[in-house]
Amino acid sequence: MSLENLNNRMLPAIEKELKRIVAWLDKPRTRLFHEMLTYHMGWSGEGSGSEATGKRIRPLLVLLSYAASNRTSKKTLVEAETWTRALPAAASIELIHNFSLVHDDIQDGSDLRRGRLTVWKKWGLPQAVNIGDVLFILAHMALLETQDAFSLQKALQAEAIINDACLALSNGQFMDISYETRTDLLVEDYWPMISGKTAALISSCTQVGATLGDADESTLANYRSFGHYLGLAFQVQDDYLGIWGDSALTGKSTESDLVAGKKSLPVLYGLAKNGAFAQRWVEGPIHSDEVGLLSEQLAGEGAKLYTQEATDQMTDLALQSLRAAEPQGEAGEALFELARMLLSRKA
Amino acid sequence: MSLENLNNRMLPAIEKELKRIVAWLDKPRTRLFHEMLTYHMGWSGEGSGSEATGKRIRPLLVLLSYAASNRTSKKTLVEAETWTRALPAAASIELIHNFSLVHDDIQDGSDLRRGRLTVWKKWGLPQAVNIGDVLFILAHMALLETQDAFSLQKALQAEAIINDACLALSNGQFMDISYETRTDLLVEDYWPMISGKTAALISSCTQVGATLGDADESTLANYRSFGHYLGLAFQVQDDYLGIWGDSALTGKSTESDLVAGKKSLPVLYGLAKNGAFAQRWVEGPIHSDEVGLLSEQLAGEGAKLYTQEATDQMTDLALQSLRAAEPQGEAGEALFELARMLLSRKA
Repeated sequence: MSLENLNNRMLPAIEKELKRIVAWLDKPRTRLFHEMLTYHMGWSGEGSGSEATGKRIRPLLVLLSYAASNRTSKKTLVEAETWTRALPAAASIELIHNFSLVHDDIQDGSDLRRGRLTVWKKWGLPQAVNIGDVLFILAHMALLETQDAFSLQKALQAEAIINDACLALSNGQFMDISYETRTDLLVEDYWPMISGKTAALISSCTQVGATLGDADESTLANYRSFGHYLGLAFQVQDDYLGIWGDSALTGKSTESDLVAGKKSLPVLYGLAKNGAFAQRWVEGPIHSDEVGLLSEQLAGEGAKLYTQEATDQMTDLALQSLRAAEPQGEAGEALFELARMLLSRKA
Repeated sequence: MSLENLNNRMLPAIEKELKRIVAWLDKPRTRLFHEMLTYHMGWSGEGSGSEATGKRIRPLLVLLSYAASNRTSKKTLVEAETWTRALPAAASIELIHNFSLVHDDIQDGSDLRRGRLTVWKKWGLPQAVNIGDVLFILAHMALLETQDAFSLQKALQAEAIINDACLALSNGQFMDISYETRTDLLVEDYWPMISGKTAALISSCTQVGATLGDADESTLANYRSFGHYLGLAFQVQDDYLGIWGDSALTGKSTESDLVAGKKSLPVLYGLAKNGAFAQRWVEGPIHSDEVGLLSEQLAGEGAKLYTQEATDQMTDLALQSLRAAEPQGEAGEALFELARMLLSRKA
């Protein structure tokens, strides 16, 4: 209810803010460059629209964390629309997320993202590297505007949080790529990888929001933990759905992570068990007609339960941290709703 | 004399600072990631050493511009080694330069840089994209330290200058890549491309230096112009040497820009002339045994003189701007020497 209400007001503002920033490229000599970006952001080209933009969860987390952590004006913050002050920072993190998606698609050699051709497939590798880079640059430019709406110090604090998250992100990316060829991986190797690759940026959203909202040290730490565990829970659940989710099992079994050969948590668990699943895995690529049997085998070896329990555990930790942060007002309620919604999806 | 003296003191400090920053990656799980970076920076692996690191011109320009623009303590600044305060900002720009080199090598498909295998050749495309990204991230982290040595405001000003330069850089990169397939290019299309691709980052060095040195508005504008024209002169001269330089003509004619098919200033000039050179160019790739004849033809059509005159003109503008900036003391003398040295190289 709170989430729906706030989402309806915040999402259009986020989209408008993103468009304002991306338009900095819209100059006569770089018009096509701008077009490449608007295509990637889901605003232009074939298949554009709300399906193509993604859910903008990260900027929403920034705005809600900001509004929920600001105790000085908790009752009026949302009403007074002062959350719009945090829009440049919110948009900045969404741009960083998109920078990582563009480069990720190059690194994974993915042809499609959200059902549309990826940027490197459409515009070629050299421009795609550059499109990722410029999204990252625009993110830093947008973030600097935080100094006008808040203060010099807040802008630098937000920059520091985001830099740390980006460093963790690239470390996670390094691990993820290097895991592809490693055969000595343990279940324990999973957590540092996704802490960087997924949780760091999500945690930066709640941290930046709470920092701008003037949260005290211990509240800030709780917001940081909330984002961290939310990111972990989200990724573990993603791994679960990648094998036992609706689209992985029914009909589109080519979408199974097993076919992609992804070393997700259930797979690492199964490899450690060294049973029938592991024996099949090391023999080479898995075909879509094996997906049904192998996902059952993997479940039989305990990976399904283990992954489900890990999701539940991370979800509990996320909600526990959020409760400890004592988020205020309608935005606070919306944060609980958002966390529950993200962690109860089925596909 | 001044340059040699300062170079001898500043270069080791720059190298030490760069190593300190890159070491932030040197953790147990990312040791190989750190190794990839130290390889690229020229510190480790086959062929490492001063030949592999590059000349570190950009950080030197930051330190010299800072020392030369700081009027409050002009006589003691170099002696007192207070220029070391600008080291994080200087290192930051060198890291951004290296981020662009790593991605550039991917985009151009270059196998070698400074006689060594490029990062993507050695570690693969996915890690190379990531190595470029992390250099950019480290650059932003280093730059933030400027707030400790100077002030919050200076750190944000430096960040803004560098963001603008990076945006111009990626715009220039966009143009450069798109020029490869365009057949309608004019000589005028050259300048916006190299303004972004080469001059913007060099100009950010002198701007950041002068900003940290508390230069007034008009002095800052002169430092900015100095860097801008120095960058343009450097690139035009590079284009000249790419066709008529020693290594392009004698022996290693495969190193000629004509073989690489690069749309440099002399080539754009020759294409506009639509003479014998242009007729050969449009027929397809140029072989190394044609380099002698074609470079003579291009010279005969006026491109050599035109390019030389453009270099001289940009050099004059650079030196004129530097004189107007009234750079102080030994660092000021060193800036003149550095500009003259860069613009009189023969290969």
